[in-house]
Amino acid sequence: MNTLLILLGCNLLSGALMSQERIVLHSQNSAIRLDLMINANGVVSYSVHYKDREVVAPSTIGFSLKKPAIELNAFECAGFDTASVNETWEPAWGEEKSIRNNYKQLVYKLTDKNGSGTRINLIFRIFDEGVGFRYEFPVQPALEHFIIGEENTRFHLGANHTAFWIPGDYDSNEYLYNTTRLNAISAFEASAKEPDIALKSPFHNRAVQTPLMLKTDNGLYINIHEAALLNYPAMNLVLNEDDYSFTSHLVPDAVGNKAYLQTPFRTPWRTIIISDDAREILSSRMILNLNEPSVIKDPSWIRPQKFIGMWWEMHVGKASWQKAGGKHGANTANVKNYIDFASANRFDGVLVEGWNEGWEDWFGNWKEDVFDFVTPYSDYDINYLTSYAREKGVRLIMHHETSGAVTNYERHLDTAFRLMRQLDINTVKTGYVGRIIPRGEHHDGQWMVNHYQRVAEKAAKYRIMVDAHESVRPTGLHRTYPNWMANEAARGNEFNNAPALGLTPEHETILPFTRMMGGPMDYTPGFFRFRLNQFDSTRKTRIRTTIAKQLALFVTMYSPLMMAGDLPGNYSLYPDAFDFIKDVPVDWDDTRILAAEPGDYVAIARKAKAREDWYIGLVTDENSRRLELNFNFLDPKSQYEATIYADAADADWNNNPAAYTIKKQHISARKKIKIAMAPGGGCAIVVRKK
Amino acid sequence: MNTLLILLGCNLLSGALMSQERIVLHSQNSAIRLDLMINANGVVSYSVHYKDREVVAPSTIGFSLKKPAIELNAFECAGFDTASVNETWEPAWGEEKSIRNNYKQLVYKLTDKNGSGTRINLIFRIFDEGVGFRYEFPVQPALEHFIIGEENTRFHLGANHTAFWIPGDYDSNEYLYNTTRLNAISAFEASAKEPDIALKSPFHNRAVQTPLMLKTDNGLYINIHEAALLNYPAMNLVLNEDDYSFTSHLVPDAVGNKAYLQTPFRTPWRTIIISDDAREILSSRMILNLNEPSVIKDPSWIRPQKFIGMWWEMHVGKASWQKAGGKHGANTANVKNYIDFASANRFDGVLVEGWNEGWEDWFGNWKEDVFDFVTPYSDYDINYLTSYAREKGVRLIMHHETSGAVTNYERHLDTAFRLMRQLDINTVKTGYVGRIIPRGEHHDGQWMVNHYQRVAEKAAKYRIMVDAHESVRPTGLHRTYPNWMANEAARGNEFNNAPALGLTPEHETILPFTRMMGGPMDYTPGFFRFRLNQFDSTRKTRIRTTIAKQLALFVTMYSPLMMAGDLPGNYSLYPDAFDFIKDVPVDWDDTRILAAEPGDYVAIARKAKAREDWYIGLVTDENSRRLELNFNFLDPKSQYEATIYADAADADWNNNPAAYTIKKQHISARKKIKIAMAPGGGCAIVVRKK
Repeated sequence: MNTLLILLGCNLLSGALMSQERIVLHSQNSAIRLDLMINANGVVSYSVHYKDREVVAPSTIGFSLKKPAIELNAFECAGFDTASVNETWEPAWGEEKSIRNNYKQLVYKLTDKNGSGTRINLIFRIFDEGVGFRYEFPVQPALEHFIIGEENTRFHLGANHTAFWIPGDYDSNEYLYNTTRLNAISAFEASAKEPDIALKSPFHNRAVQTPLMLKTDNGLYINIHEAALLNYPAMNLVLNEDDYSFTSHLVPDAVGNKAYLQTPFRTPWRTIIISDDAREILSSRMILNLNEPSVIKDPSWIRPQKFIGMWWEMHVGKASWQKAGGKHGANTANVKNYIDFASANRFDGVLVEGWNEGWEDWFGNWKEDVFDFVTPYSDYDINYLTSYAREKGVRLIMHHETSGAVTNYERHLDTAFRLMRQLDINTVKTGYVGRIIPRGEHHDGQWMVNHYQRVAEKAAKYRIMVDAHESVRPTGLHRTYPNWMANEAARGNEFNNAPALGLTPEHETILPFTRMMGGPMDYTPGFFRFRLNQFDSTRKTRIRTTIAKQLALFVTMYSPLMMAGDLPGNYSLYPDAFDFIKDVPVDWDDTRILAAEPGDYVAIARKAKAREDWYIGLVTDENSRRLELNFNFLDPKSQYEATIYADAADADWNNNPAAYTIKKQHISARKKIKIAMAPGGGCAIVVRKK
Repeated sequence: MNTLLILLGCNLLSGALMSQERIVLHSQNSAIRLDLMINANGVVSYSVHYKDREVVAPSTIGFSLKKPAIELNAFECAGFDTASVNETWEPAWGEEKSIRNNYKQLVYKLTDKNGSGTRINLIFRIFDEGVGFRYEFPVQPALEHFIIGEENTRFHLGANHTAFWIPGDYDSNEYLYNTTRLNAISAFEASAKEPDIALKSPFHNRAVQTPLMLKTDNGLYINIHEAALLNYPAMNLVLNEDDYSFTSHLVPDAVGNKAYLQTPFRTPWRTIIISDDAREILSSRMILNLNEPSVIKDPSWIRPQKFIGMWWEMHVGKASWQKAGGKHGANTANVKNYIDFASANRFDGVLVEGWNEGWEDWFGNWKEDVFDFVTPYSDYDINYLTSYAREKGVRLIMHHETSGAVTNYERHLDTAFRLMRQLDINTVKTGYVGRIIPRGEHHDGQWMVNHYQRVAEKAAKYRIMVDAHESVRPTGLHRTYPNWMANEAARGNEFNNAPALGLTPEHETILPFTRMMGGPMDYTPGFFRFRLNQFDSTRKTRIRTTIAKQLALFVTMYSPLMMAGDLPGNYSLYPDAFDFIKDVPVDWDDTRILAAEPGDYVAIARKAKAREDWYIGLVTDENSRRLELNFNFLDPKSQYEATIYADAADADWNNNPAAYTIKKQHISARKKIKIAMAPGGGCAIVVRKK
């Protein structure tokens, strides 16, 4: 059923007054069906079916504007347009060499019925795996500048699904995921359990963030998120437990407004991805497809990188960011050792945190003038290290911690980027730890969303790649800004060192279905030492993983900026396991989701960029697990050798995390093999063409 | 009585528990007496006497902090220090060649008695004409970063004085002054009468701004203001009508806090200037003396300037700032004419507004990305005009209207200043019309106070002079930052074109006692055409002045950046009167206040920098007035010729504003002459040494 079905759509055909008008649109593969309805009162709603099962029951849309002060909740239809697109495009880097973008589009034109005459267009795109829709405010005489009070988009799910959620929050997305029924969502309770998150701003007990991953009792997987979040606040979702519906809640600004806009304006896309096979959630590129093509015409300077960092030393108490106190990590001699290690082990770069003045008084006081981003500590010879790194074929990676003082960062940004260019440092890790200045703004509000975009755009002018930490959750903008390569924007591996909740073994089986639906995460995998009392014997924190799982994360936690997190010295503990980290690429020609179940396991195979080798990562939660891998994605005419980095038979995250085996095995496209993973474990496999 | 009188000061002498302890300090000339008291409950208060008359009755001090959440209103005295200073210093430019700074200082050390142990120092400086005091938060273990909730400084006046006031307001100081008894202060009513002020934020019906000018029934003049406003919000004063006391009210930030501070910190000075002779209010340099010396070591590049502007054309509807619409003022040909006019008439510069892209949509929508400060309109050839101006011995003056989008300005500031340096343009008029971004911040809050300082400091690095409009009221910072030469920060001459209230003839007799106590004002005097319907016959606005008064303002309204406001074409109407504008200097070796009464008249004589000529300006309010001038400030051994630009006998602001006479007269130091001023009139005199 490849055609557009119009049932009295927009009343244009009949001219009669109907109690209900409806447009129905199916995806190319017929799996997804969108219904768009307007009733006699002008209320517009949409519903989504997957394989004839209702996934989103009729859900209303609308806006509350503050300027002009009007409610947009009743409309007249002024017509509609349809179109279809089927194209492929090639990302600058990514999980695949080329991406298919195949959708039908419906532009539904509405006019406010309440008296203002305001026109908005509802734009739907129906893909094989889901639906994206956005609002467009076209140029019109009665509306130029306007202020959003709230967007009232509903997602009426209608049943008490299982949800993988973190609390709705204006400032932090670094929560551990909760897996509960919808009616058990308690954002405040979940937030209260997280003392290790430096800044939390939960606002409603029934609020969650997107990407929100859901599973229905009849086996459907549903992912709700947004795409192309530009010049608009991030969307949280607030549950109405009476009917199991969510309503959008935008992050406010300092005075309680949501967004300052000017026609023409198009909101981000609201995305609903649906499948009865969890693997199809992970293989969906719908969010990426809903973003605009790259604005960078020549992306040749943008290079995926694997690097190490002067970073974990500080987290485990060996060194400090600040110079005062006598434990300064980023001193010339120490960083020189990192450069040597990077060079000897095929890393592209060395991230150096704590290199610049200001760390003695940087956090917790809403202080504005903390860093200037150009003044190194006196024991850090930036010019020498830059040239030393160059000799060694390694690049330093810049660190710009803003401490949340974004006004201060913006006024230094040109100077800071100029220094980077002068030093030929072309990658920056930005950080936004702490309360935002402008005071009253939030990490995920419109002003900050614009800031992240400004940084990406300005960085592009300087040919600089960006890795943003404590930023808003990604929404596929790496298509448009391929130099904005990665974000943290979730609970990263560093939380292994957080005393209260730390990380759970299931965390990495949920992140791909949630945070990573929006884009690459700088997760910093690769930890080889699990008790974190190496330099501070009182420290009780530990990492709940196995070595084999840490290797697997280099494949499952996709990022073009991939930092191996542990200390150089710790890698020497297991040099043969470290070989995998040295070998694993960070850019890919193809990706196959071999197995996946949120909260339980993920298995992903990726084909190395411009090579015939495949790399496979498998991770499990706290349960041991045996997965059968089918290698039918290999070239059937070729023979391969697999090197399998597996949990040892007696491995266990709790008692025996460092037990692994490395074995080689002949592989072909017809082969299936079973992989056993320990509790909290995983497996990494290199498949080399013979 | 030149000594410090200590009556059981601080209880250090007796050791006994006293109900009241007191320190008394007199000024060098004994006219001013400060009493500082602490009672048994730890309440600290001060009082001020002038010639044995109580001017400020016992008034308490204190703070409410938000972080830590403590009230600082009861103290123990931990000792005190005294000092005295008598020095002279030379300003980079100004009303005098050298300034005497002569005061006694008392540092009163207090410890919070409520339990926090917080230490603050109260620092008083007693001058011959008044008292300044500030609070110091020294470095201390229990207080490093802290947030001010409110400063609770009282000024207990104790009687229903006459006040010259404008409404307390977070964003605007462009009000017409009200002259009422204290108990008739009604800020909301006064604000409601001002539809021509684009942005108003009155916050309390009994609130007024400083400088607040007061006159008592027994003939004392009192001026309350502040000095050295840095890293702190501006102070408003809220009247308690029960006892005729004012309490400080600081301008809040976006979340309701007042200031984010870190020890050591010193607040601005609170200033009280007192005299029984109104002239001594105007001749006081106490506020300037309370500011720190210049931070600019080589001020040779800072030059007082007289200039004209591509500006009034837009105000009267001849041209527009924006290019769209076909009336763009700042086009190459038009500005070339301004340069020719400036060159032919000895002006130093030409201000050009509307030169840059963005004016089509710049105001009223809280829009952030309006101007980039470097992109000229296509009909404005900035490179050609710069070199043409240079040929003609004239400099262009840059205009940076921010539209209140200060975040946007700050991120472009370096680039904008670099363009100015490249073009050898070394003066900028900044503007802050509209609601501030960061949204929720105010023009007079701490964040903006810091912004103005940042602009001054960054401008100094680029050797740029600053003239800030819609900025916070000045507090003598031109001593510390002599490149931050002038501000508008009050109702300027442009309000002659405001339909509702416009300007009254008395306005310029009040401004010297109020706004100008803090520093020079870019008032833009010199209007020769009084009905503003020249280009738009429907326009009813008019200027309530005489030509002679407009000339006098060049002397009475001191500014080192002095813009002659009218159109070049209008100056040709009265070429002999225009001679005064061409001749009058903008930098002075000496200044004498010859006569003054707030709201009635001002007469000021100034000696031209490095020359023997004096220039005198007299202005009156709506009443005609005859003032006798005593020329005893002239060199008694020399003879002078005075050129007197006076109102004609039948001149009148309302019916005959352009009637003036020019006569020459022999003058010597022994001479007294009577000058008659018309209603709304004035007189300008050049006294040249023979």
